[in-house]
Amino acid sequence: MLSQFQAVGQGLFTQGLVSAQGGNLSVKLGEHLVITHRGSPLGSIQEGDLVQTGITKNSRATPLASTELEVHRCIYKNTSALAVVHAHPPYAVALSFTEEEIVPCDVEGRTLLPRVPILGADIEVKLEELADEIARLIGEHKVILIRGHGSFAVSQLLEEAYYYTVVLERSCRLRYLLKALDVDPGASPI
Amino acid sequence: MLSQFQAVGQGLFTQGLVSAQGGNLSVKLGEHLVITHRGSPLGSIQEGDLVQTGITKNSRATPLASTELEVHRCIYKNTSALAVVHAHPPYAVALSFTEEEIVPCDVEGRTLLPRVPILGADIEVKLEELADEIARLIGEHKVILIRGHGSFAVSQLLEEAYYYTVVLERSCRLRYLLKALDVDPGASPI
Amino acid sequence: MLSQFQAVGQGLFTQGLVSAQGGNLSVKLGEHLVITHRGSPLGSIQEGDLVQTGITKNSRATPLASTELEVHRCIYKNTSALAVVHAHPPYAVALSFTEEEIVPCDVEGRTLLPRVPILGADIEVKLEELADEIARLIGEHKVILIRGHGSFAVSQLLEEAYYYTVVLERSCRLRYLLKALDVDPGASPI
Amino acid sequence: MLSQFQAVGQGLFTQGLVSAQGGNLSVKLGEHLVITHRGSPLGSIQEGDLVQTGITKNSRATPLASTELEVHRCIYKNTSALAVVHAHPPYAVALSFTEEEIVPCDVEGRTLLPRVPILGADIEVKLEELADEIARLIGEHKVILIRGHGSFAVSQLLEEAYYYTVVLERSCRLRYLLKALDVDPGASPI
Repeated sequence: MLSQFQAVGQGLFTQGLVSAQGGNLSVKLGEHLVITHRGSPLGSIQEGDLVQTGITKNSRATPLASTELEVHRCIYKNTSALAVVHAHPPYAVALSFTEEEIVPCDVEGRTLLPRVPILGADIEVKLEELADEIARLIGEHKVILIRGHGSFAVSQLLEEAYYYTVVLERSCRLRYLLKALDVDPGASPI
Repeated sequence: MLSQFQAVGQGLFTQGLVSAQGGNLSVKLGEHLVITHRGSPLGSIQEGDLVQTGITKNSRATPLASTELEVHRCIYKNTSALAVVHAHPPYAVALSFTEEEIVPCDVEGRTLLPRVPILGADIEVKLEELADEIARLIGEHKVILIRGHGSFAVSQLLEEAYYYTVVLERSCRLRYLLKALDVDPGASPI
Repeated sequence: MLSQFQAVGQGLFTQGLVSAQGGNLSVKLGEHLVITHRGSPLGSIQEGDLVQTGITKNSRATPLASTELEVHRCIYKNTSALAVVHAHPPYAVALSFTEEEIVPCDVEGRTLLPRVPILGADIEVKLEELADEIARLIGEHKVILIRGHGSFAVSQLLEEAYYYTVVLERSCRLRYLLKALDVDPGASPI
Repeated sequence: MLSQFQAVGQGLFTQGLVSAQGGNLSVKLGEHLVITHRGSPLGSIQEGDLVQTGITKNSRATPLASTELEVHRCIYKNTSALAVVHAHPPYAVALSFTEEEIVPCDVEGRTLLPRVPILGADIEVKLEELADEIARLIGEHKVILIRGHGSFAVSQLLEEAYYYTVVLERSCRLRYLLKALDVDPGASPI
């Protein structure tokens, strides 16, 4: 499992989808989850950067888990997701200030993510307060964006949730590039 | 042959020309072709990511091949190409929404790719429906773009089709950067 | 300690936050500091690229130290910092020409760096003349920007000063992307 | 010497300053020069990618040398340069269409390259026809730009000519970013 976290973490970092310590990853294991350590550098995850805790119950290790543990737990409680990727993709975050939702206009994005909702009207709102809404929408859309913050993506496999994150960012960069030229790609939700 | 696929796949991925699972590569071997597996990550191709099948006949492995197998087959049937690279270069895809064709205005681009046609008026059109047109135009131009989707490049060598793809993207980025400043580089087809 | 310098230097270089020889790093060791060599390539630091000298007293090695040694010394004399990272982050430097201070509008940036002052009205001013002002402001803000030049970040750990630098650049890129669309993210200092 | 070419070639490629096969490097050795092979991939130079030939006399290997051999020769004949780096830096090439010369407005750029001339009014002009003018100007300025094509940089060391190329591109990116916001950084030649 470590190598899976390492490959996904490194992929996110080298593509600029997380900063040196931002973002977090988890997978569900029955009643437990394994999640990255608070402030762990996703670009170079070591064994000590993974923390196991319960989905509903705390363990001794719980305080070491990512500060966004409660959002991961809420997703696992309310959806069939087995893996969660939280990242800070830069073009997606930029568009979170200008769009109501993301509608990819490239074929890869449209096929995988026809519509990505954007949550959080105010960047002062705490992420935990949005946990229920995140869990509700992500069950349906696989990926959601939090305004001014970043993305959550879910799947049965960590690699796939990572893939959705990459595709979201690429679709958002395309929309951004067109927007900067005042070009409307003319795509509407499928 | 594996190392050739790996070098090209990694080059495409690290330069951002494909996402974590997008894009596909193939080479022709007599009546057969070797093509990347459906959804294989080009940035880290393993032996199991290569699939051999016939150019006209199916094999047991055919269902594992990239979803764009039929376009590759159509190119090999109708041109002298021995290698095909399909990628999703971001600036090229952005310009596919604003241009009728790509005319590079840098020396490297102009020398290799004087004119790159853009196909597909509507991003809802299935790629397979465009296969004949792709094969017809790519024989003449070496590289073509599909609107809102990506590029196909052909050559006798996989490395060269990869090189054309890189040059296309760099020429498109240059045109984009100038377009964003409202500068017309003034180049017309040679 | 070498491996720490190497990891941070490589991180800065691969993310484009320093050029091939720009930028410099130091840590405090009691009355001494270890700093990168004049013109050393941060992307590939070797043992010979580290220079030890006094914070107040010169040693034989002093002339080999980074040209910005005096700024590092001034910071160590006047603050509780144990590590300093000086980089040339491109979007931050771009915004240094357009803003009076940097106010991140993304959650990661706002949490870590609510306000980043910008010093130096005139890019002809020598950095040493700004050393006292840099030391005064950096004690309070952890990161400061020098107009047309780059960033200084301090912390107890080199990795953390590096992290602040990365976050500054990402927040500046976000503000730049919105500014280029004429979008005001509406965030004000916390 | 091979490792020097490899380090510089890889640095240029990973920073996007050359494409998969563009650009070329050389060093002077008395009456000879060692130059990269025609079409060699700078990102992964092997021993067979280096070609030795005379500065004034051809050898058997001359036809294998980079197509820009004559420009390198002309520089060595007319200046004291011992190393030449030719690259295709994207922002520098973009600005070559909009500026008469590059005047860096960042401190690193201004210190090293106060003024970078741009040659070649018409991108149809053959590079060899510009060789004399390149040699004349590069002796004075260390780096010059060819409109719509790329940069030449010279120094006593290959690493330093590479460094100048990196700094040029970073200064050009900064000027581009400001130009796209309609901001005049107000810097004039020193």
